[in-house]
Amino acid sequence: MMISVGVSNRHVHLKQEDFDILFGSDQKLEILKELSQPGEYASTLKLSIKTDKDIIEDVRIIGPIREYTQVEISKTDSFKLGINPPIRNSGDVAGSASVTLIGPKGTVELSEGCIIANRHIHITNEEIQKYGLTGKTKVRVKIDGPKGGIMDNVILKKSDNYLFELHIDTDDANAHLIKQGDTVEILEIE
Amino acid sequence: MMISVGVSNRHVHLKQEDFDILFGSDQKLEILKELSQPGEYASTLKLSIKTDKDIIEDVRIIGPIREYTQVEISKTDSFKLGINPPIRNSGDVAGSASVTLIGPKGTVELSEGCIIANRHIHITNEEIQKYGLTGKTKVRVKIDGPKGGIMDNVILKKSDNYLFELHIDTDDANAHLIKQGDTVEILEIE
Repeated sequence: MMISVGVSNRHVHLKQEDFDILFGSDQKLEILKELSQPGEYASTLKLSIKTDKDIIEDVRIIGPIREYTQVEISKTDSFKLGINPPIRNSGDVAGSASVTLIGPKGTVELSEGCIIANRHIHITNEEIQKYGLTGKTKVRVKIDGPKGGIMDNVILKKSDNYLFELHIDTDDANAHLIKQGDTVEILEIE
Repeated sequence: MMISVGVSNRHVHLKQEDFDILFGSDQKLEILKELSQPGEYASTLKLSIKTDKDIIEDVRIIGPIREYTQVEISKTDSFKLGINPPIRNSGDVAGSASVTLIGPKGTVELSEGCIIANRHIHITNEEIQKYGLTGKTKVRVKIDGPKGGIMDNVILKKSDNYLFELHIDTDDANAHLIKQGDTVEILEIE
């Protein structure tokens, strides 16, 4: 079966308490552009991610506000920042890397919260049945082209509110020469 | 069969004429560190790669001097520079991307010469026979780990002077979480 690709650049999800410190409690998270997953949006706001080694500026806040603060970067970003974030599913931030967030109104020191996101597929339970993936947690994805190949360990994230889409980071996109909106093949079930 | 990984960061090879313009004809290319392939070395010299969009500074010159000037960057670098280099074997620069090189003594406008290098393996003819690869031009490579998978289109570069090694760029290394000196598996012959 074929699936559309979404490429995630580095971004930050914020809980309300951290948002208030970084941007002020009178500030609101506003929609710049809706993302493909229902309810998710690129906000108009950005912040900086700082470590002892370096800083990455202009990192987009993805809305809406969440129950936890999470910073998602690529391995390439992690070398620049001099940190070693684990490869994790979104929301699984326990013991992940420490970074400092710098907003226009304040600073938040995260003792944990920075991850490299697992490759994952958003899929509904109806699609799980339709594609014969019942009971599966991971698939493999095939990419064509001069730097193509197979990506292993692509996690299935199930919710009836999801749009069927493969999410990868910029390292995976650039290494395989694929971009937002390209179509790739779910090849084989692990 | 297993093979050791070499990761190539962005770098430049220069012909004598361009070297003289960039660094002066009284300057010599000196060895900072020998590389794994016999005779190749990281030199003490760096230059900048400039385009209409942006600049990347401190790009290492790899010695010795070659018969042609060639700039090897990653897809990630190409987005920063706003150019679209082809995926090529080293030396195959006809019609490749245009960049400007800036050295301490002068500037060279390359109408072509900037590529993204093909994934490739340095291998001797003896090893070709030993591993049963006679007549093959490409293999596939398997990578383990949380972002593992299979890299297709890995070109076999044959010379009796080579050290057996897989060369990939920083995008492939970072996407697959592999680094210089890691060991991966040549899995299957295309």
